[in-house]
Amino acid sequence: MAKLTKRSEDYSQWYLDIVTRAEMADYAPVKGCMVIRPWGYAIWERMQRALDDMFKATGHVNCYFPLLIPQSFLQKEAEHVEGFAPECAVVTRGGDKELEEPLVIRPTSETIIWAMYKKWIQSWRDLPLLYNQWANVVRWEMRTRLFLRTAEFLWQEGHTAHAGQQEAVEEAERMLGVYRRFAEDWMAMPVLAGRKSEGQKFPGAVTTYTIEALMQDGKALQAGTSHYLGQNFARAFDVQFQNRDGQLEYVYATSWGVSTRLVGALVMSHSDDAGLVLPPRLAPLEVVIVPIPKAGADNAAIEQAAYRLAEPLEGKVRIRVDDRDNVSPGWKFNEWELKGVPVRIELGPKDLQKGQAVVVRRDTGQKMPMSQDAAAFEVPRLLEEIQSSLFAKAKARLEANCRSADSYDGFKKVVERDGGFVLAPWCGSRECEGRIGDETKATIRLISDEAEECPACMLCGKGPARRVPFAVSY
Amino acid sequence: MAKLTKRSEDYSQWYLDIVTRAEMADYAPVKGCMVIRPWGYAIWERMQRALDDMFKATGHVNCYFPLLIPQSFLQKEAEHVEGFAPECAVVTRGGDKELEEPLVIRPTSETIIWAMYKKWIQSWRDLPLLYNQWANVVRWEMRTRLFLRTAEFLWQEGHTAHAGQQEAVEEAERMLGVYRRFAEDWMAMPVLAGRKSEGQKFPGAVTTYTIEALMQDGKALQAGTSHYLGQNFARAFDVQFQNRDGQLEYVYATSWGVSTRLVGALVMSHSDDAGLVLPPRLAPLEVVIVPIPKAGADNAAIEQAAYRLAEPLEGKVRIRVDDRDNVSPGWKFNEWELKGVPVRIELGPKDLQKGQAVVVRRDTGQKMPMSQDAAAFEVPRLLEEIQSSLFAKAKARLEANCRSADSYDGFKKVVERDGGFVLAPWCGSRECEGRIGDETKATIRLISDEAEECPACMLCGKGPARRVPFAVSY
Repeated sequence: MAKLTKRSEDYSQWYLDIVTRAEMADYAPVKGCMVIRPWGYAIWERMQRALDDMFKATGHVNCYFPLLIPQSFLQKEAEHVEGFAPECAVVTRGGDKELEEPLVIRPTSETIIWAMYKKWIQSWRDLPLLYNQWANVVRWEMRTRLFLRTAEFLWQEGHTAHAGQQEAVEEAERMLGVYRRFAEDWMAMPVLAGRKSEGQKFPGAVTTYTIEALMQDGKALQAGTSHYLGQNFARAFDVQFQNRDGQLEYVYATSWGVSTRLVGALVMSHSDDAGLVLPPRLAPLEVVIVPIPKAGADNAAIEQAAYRLAEPLEGKVRIRVDDRDNVSPGWKFNEWELKGVPVRIELGPKDLQKGQAVVVRRDTGQKMPMSQDAAAFEVPRLLEEIQSSLFAKAKARLEANCRSADSYDGFKKVVERDGGFVLAPWCGSRECEGRIGDETKATIRLISDEAEECPACMLCGKGPARRVPFAVSY
Repeated sequence: MAKLTKRSEDYSQWYLDIVTRAEMADYAPVKGCMVIRPWGYAIWERMQRALDDMFKATGHVNCYFPLLIPQSFLQKEAEHVEGFAPECAVVTRGGDKELEEPLVIRPTSETIIWAMYKKWIQSWRDLPLLYNQWANVVRWEMRTRLFLRTAEFLWQEGHTAHAGQQEAVEEAERMLGVYRRFAEDWMAMPVLAGRKSEGQKFPGAVTTYTIEALMQDGKALQAGTSHYLGQNFARAFDVQFQNRDGQLEYVYATSWGVSTRLVGALVMSHSDDAGLVLPPRLAPLEVVIVPIPKAGADNAAIEQAAYRLAEPLEGKVRIRVDDRDNVSPGWKFNEWELKGVPVRIELGPKDLQKGQAVVVRRDTGQKMPMSQDAAAFEVPRLLEEIQSSLFAKAKARLEANCRSADSYDGFKKVVERDGGFVLAPWCGSRECEGRIGDETKATIRLISDEAEECPACMLCGKGPARRVPFAVSY
């Protein structure tokens, strides 16, 4: 097997090598589109299941809105159309005829959903609507990268309708909390959380909340957003409800989404030069047992022992005995390392004699001989240990890569030399934000409620300013 | 609440009344498209989960292929393009530019998948590929009906690649068996199973296998199909593999799918003039407990008793205490009947005094007073009883509606007067099949391996003929 590109040589190629060689995804024949292969899709399925459970536990239900949206709908909210129209795929023919009105493939579903909410909402009794859908969307992107940015991607989009502003803001914040917990507890990926600046928010939102993760190359990655939409879409689609006082009022809205981009973020959070490293909770396979036959040994007994070892773990962990006879044990080790299976158990003739097995951690490479009887309770414990250890490592990296700068010159140096999040004072103006972005490629990732107050903006020198994290981002 | 249209008055309107009034689906602003509302989607989610488990238990894995297919791909298989090109939605603009080659929104994914299989398959060692995807597809239909026929629908499509013909045929037959088990064990919907005639098979298939159900109005409904595709798509996309003898050979293929149409079939299988009737295994909610407050009674105690009743059932069955205070118990009864919840438990002041509750079956209307202590084990048993009773009833209806005819005159009378499946002798020619369809609207639903041999076709009088089930269908 050819070696992977090393992170230190070419980080971007290292990422693509892992994604393609671990058979997570492949390039589709249509520009900018990807095929999600079974190993990548199995990770996405685990993400979906965990998120869906969290959505349902917070009172949400799933539904499905159409793929195709009349072009005129998109034009009803001024900022929204400006944000999305340039990247739409447009259907102009159907059933061998030109359409009277072109249809847009949804880039996001606010407009079609609020057109329906108008039919369903009359009174405060109809509220809240706490709806989510799992769907594909298309945004005509020019510079694409597997998982991280593709013309078509899979995501979930929550769209809720509320009788009050406070309730809607709380919903948007609650869902950001869900995303944060998912990122940290499942992906073992620590994040910063806060609001986007005016310049960076979702087209049509009053407030966009975001979680931001840090990749190994020091770039930030926006991992999930939740929007308080105010009454913007209700006004655009004339969705009013009779409130408890009998008065008509526009409905308050939120929307929130995460996408298959998270699979890319997961790859870049933990992996190494041998391939993918997966946190156990999202690994399609947590444990692989590889019997090691030797010439002259009782190889049938080794294989039997492998299955005996697996038996008490079945149902508790996702486990497989890799008994393929057309590839060597060494080839299997490489393959499962490349695919990021958290624990490998090796079982050879000598192990069999000693009643032991050799347990190998993917994340650290540590080899632990273990009695076969102990494996049944040690392995689940080890998987938990790996999960928290991956998080701790990523958290230490995040903390080590949050730096401060006060002057603009100092800021530029840190951005260029160290990358990561650079916390620097900013006056709050779009002008300074824009110029800093143009000159350094670093953008304001978020504004935290606890942001430190500073006397002066690093660029224009005006005050008051607040210290916000900048970073070059994916 | 306004009454539903009765089945006997207008079957088609009765169906649409249930789907819209039970809030299963609604019409979208784009012609022929629908919105699947939470109650309808929850049924689909339960179907998905059950089918997905069955697919995985038979060795399949999920993946995801792109929505957009270059138009030229569709043209590579002659029958396939003829079948699908006239109903395609076509994207001609992307990112504000005219596309060089128009892209088709997938009507089905054989072509894009086999274009990828060419990259992934070289040797017999790469086979079989047992892939499935859950996706949306678009077919530009003119006459649509919620769930049963819509321009966009949700489905799963399995696409497998094999090293041998026998193995591929077995796969296609195995998946038809999975569909049959799902229809019978989960939907409580008995089906006939067999092959489609040459005139009715999937465009590009060698053999199409089908399951056919019977709706309450005597029309048949194709509920799932599985195709043995031979080497047709492998030839069209030049997918060859080196077999065990070192020779190049084209790969053998199957594809198989079921869609949200099954939700419509479920509605029409069991429902009545009061609304939806759902088999417990697919019901989003299996049991609803309705406390019945009375003026002067200890209503808090009634509500507490309702929750106490629910407690031992939580986790075993999908249950909800409907404690809403802005609608009356009678309103709740109607709503849950309309939505098809299999079991309702009523709990009023008198019941409380007697330590009992009144358990009501949705399918039969039977009311059963039951001690509150007994409910914890009686209710799960009752749900199983309802599941099998719905199947038995549907099976009896299917059997009562399989009739035979020998002469063409007799056949026409039975089709017109009784509907259902009419088993009649057919010579096997497309001409007779076509003329019978044109004249009676009844088509050959399937050809069974056990079809009785007859001396002469009912239309042309030529022999040998076989007795096959005809029906007017959805």
